[in-house]
Amino acid sequence: MNYPSRLIEDAVNEISRLPGIGKKTALRLALHLLKREEEQTRSLSNALLDMRTKTTYCAKCHNIADDIYCNICANQKRDQSIICVVVDTRDVLAIESTNQYKGLYHVLGGIISPLEGIGPSDLHIDSLIERVENPGDFAQVQEIILALSPTMEGDTTAFYLQKRLKSTGVKISTIARGVPIGGDLEYADEITLGRSIISRVAYD
Amino acid sequence: MNYPSRLIEDAVNEISRLPGIGKKTALRLALHLLKREEEQTRSLSNALLDMRTKTTYCAKCHNIADDIYCNICANQKRDQSIICVVVDTRDVLAIESTNQYKGLYHVLGGIISPLEGIGPSDLHIDSLIERVENPGDFAQVQEIILALSPTMEGDTTAFYLQKRLKSTGVKISTIARGVPIGGDLEYADEITLGRSIISRVAYD
Repeated sequence: MNYPSRLIEDAVNEISRLPGIGKKTALRLALHLLKREEEQTRSLSNALLDMRTKTTYCAKCHNIADDIYCNICANQKRDQSIICVVVDTRDVLAIESTNQYKGLYHVLGGIISPLEGIGPSDLHIDSLIERVENPGDFAQVQEIILALSPTMEGDTTAFYLQKRLKSTGVKISTIARGVPIGGDLEYADEITLGRSIISRVAYD
Repeated sequence: MNYPSRLIEDAVNEISRLPGIGKKTALRLALHLLKREEEQTRSLSNALLDMRTKTTYCAKCHNIADDIYCNICANQKRDQSIICVVVDTRDVLAIESTNQYKGLYHVLGGIISPLEGIGPSDLHIDSLIERVENPGDFAQVQEIILALSPTMEGDTTAFYLQKRLKSTGVKISTIARGVPIGGDLEYADEITLGRSIISRVAYD
């Protein structure tokens, strides 16, 4: 395409490198920014650069952080005796938004996937064992919750983690799998429904 | 949502101000940038800021430009005797990508829309009349093509432009409306099909 200005062309090319954004959408976004006050583009541009250059990863849980420890690990009100193992920051945000969990997290940074060439050594697994064996300034870990997706990769990773954690003697659990709340039984897939029968919960 | 870092929160807020991008997509884009090399974010950030602060508008046709005149007005090989009137830069790009037009453009910057409170004085209409009446260093204008969308607003704007341009005596035309090429007749709407019969073209 013949862009009217080289600067627009550069901007469109850069925006369209983002996942899920093509050249047409990128052009629409660029023209939108051109119509708005300069201040909006300036804030966007600065926010992106600050985020990329100033954020680090939490020394404890590998979540994104502004400091040595992330907000969650640094929060003295959280229960340090329980660690929820997740794949990435998005999972942390998803669990945090439920308001049901008050423990700490451990971000693996990925999932074991032989197809994509991701093995256990590519993930933050050694540091998880370390947190259990040498809590340091933190409280002794009593339980590890594996909150991994119920997929082949998730199950493989969960199986591997169980094996590695076994020697530490820590209690290991996994998030419940079953029919989603609000979902209609007849639309639940047979594997989920089958599992939810096997893992049925007795009324107290 | 409880973001793990204030910097991410700022970035997500800024990204989600763009049209069609919600908080979830913004978070996905932010996390994507965090995973890539710092260089990518730096180029994106600079490209956006350069585009916003360094582009101007062409003194002749109001298209986006890097200099006083846009690439098209500055190109001596273009036919200066014909001007195609469009709403915005996207329309210029759409027509340019057809490779069928070698004249100049005039970008109105909007369309007459009483509902949105946009009147003729909000558009670059006076400067269009000026281009016809006082071509200056440019060739005398022989024809004006109105390339506006076939909508109520487009037709209103076209009607207004015809009235204003009448006194200049310049030839005025509009882009052809009819059944789209590759489209099936049975799926064409009746207004388009009706018009395409009225505006039928004789074989030479």
